[in-house]
Amino acid sequence: MNFCSNCGAKLVVRVPPGDSLPRHVCDSCATIHYRNPLMVVGTLPEWEDRILLCRRAIEPRLGFWTLPAGFMELGETTAQAALRETLEEARARVALGEAFTLLSVPHVNQVHLYYRARLLDREFAAGEETLEVRLFGESEIPWDAIAFRTISTTLRHFFADRKEGRFRMHAGEILPPK
Amino acid sequence: MNFCSNCGAKLVVRVPPGDSLPRHVCDSCATIHYRNPLMVVGTLPEWEDRILLCRRAIEPRLGFWTLPAGFMELGETTAQAALRETLEEARARVALGEAFTLLSVPHVNQVHLYYRARLLDREFAAGEETLEVRLFGESEIPWDAIAFRTISTTLRHFFADRKEGRFRMHAGEILPPK
Repeated sequence: MNFCSNCGAKLVVRVPPGDSLPRHVCDSCATIHYRNPLMVVGTLPEWEDRILLCRRAIEPRLGFWTLPAGFMELGETTAQAALRETLEEARARVALGEAFTLLSVPHVNQVHLYYRARLLDREFAAGEETLEVRLFGESEIPWDAIAFRTISTTLRHFFADRKEGRFRMHAGEILPPK
Repeated sequence: MNFCSNCGAKLVVRVPPGDSLPRHVCDSCATIHYRNPLMVVGTLPEWEDRILLCRRAIEPRLGFWTLPAGFMELGETTAQAALRETLEEARARVALGEAFTLLSVPHVNQVHLYYRARLLDREFAAGEETLEVRLFGESEIPWDAIAFRTISTTLRHFFADRKEGRFRMHAGEILPPK
């Protein structure tokens, strides 16, 4: 961040009065430009005892498997974002269930939220950012080819909860790889 | 958003290739400037059968009561943000409990997350953005002077769950006032 998005002047980095952290400040129009973590929202779609995964057609992690998810847009609720991303990436229509995992990923400034979801039909297909979409039973999950640790963590909680016969919300964090 | 924060050139608003929504695009350095909802994170601190509220020293809603909460910072987990805001606004040290409410507020592009929390001592005090901090029993809650609907919703879920003897996570949304 170099220039003020409001007036175009050069920004300086400084702790504003009453604040405790350095911010990008515009001395020309007095705007403070905050930067904050972003939310990534998606679903864990179920069909009978199988779950839907998408193989990524874009970087990062092109060719790896993921749950349908993406950045929340302005004006959306988390539920709307989850339904939209599921439709965009897997062309899949789902009935949304409970919020299931809420995972902070502080080293990339993201918070990931996954909802449980039930596929309404089997008419899913690869969206623009997806190479293929498939249903996987627990024994078929390609654990070595999962795109992100938020996804493998969400899948592990799902299979563990399903075995226990009781689903609950899991909040946690994903720390940087060693 | 008028100017490119990367190179300072004037921005245009247009749907980028492969996208479906208009974005602020820089034709000079090819940066796409996305805007996304922000997370507000806080706690619902308990002391015996009372809960802690802060009276706001800043706009919006100066003089109204709220739970300690604020915008997540870069590099934080949601749990760290909740503890930091509780310390900053109420000078209170808490043991964090479960994630309790997750409320989308789409008309202001925010997602609010509140954790249950237990005060470790009674040494709380007003922080910089707070006029006073007090403990309230259920019958003492100043319902007509609560700052935001995310707060009154979180408090109502808390007292309802406490009556039921069973706390669970509540995900939902706050729609614009009529």
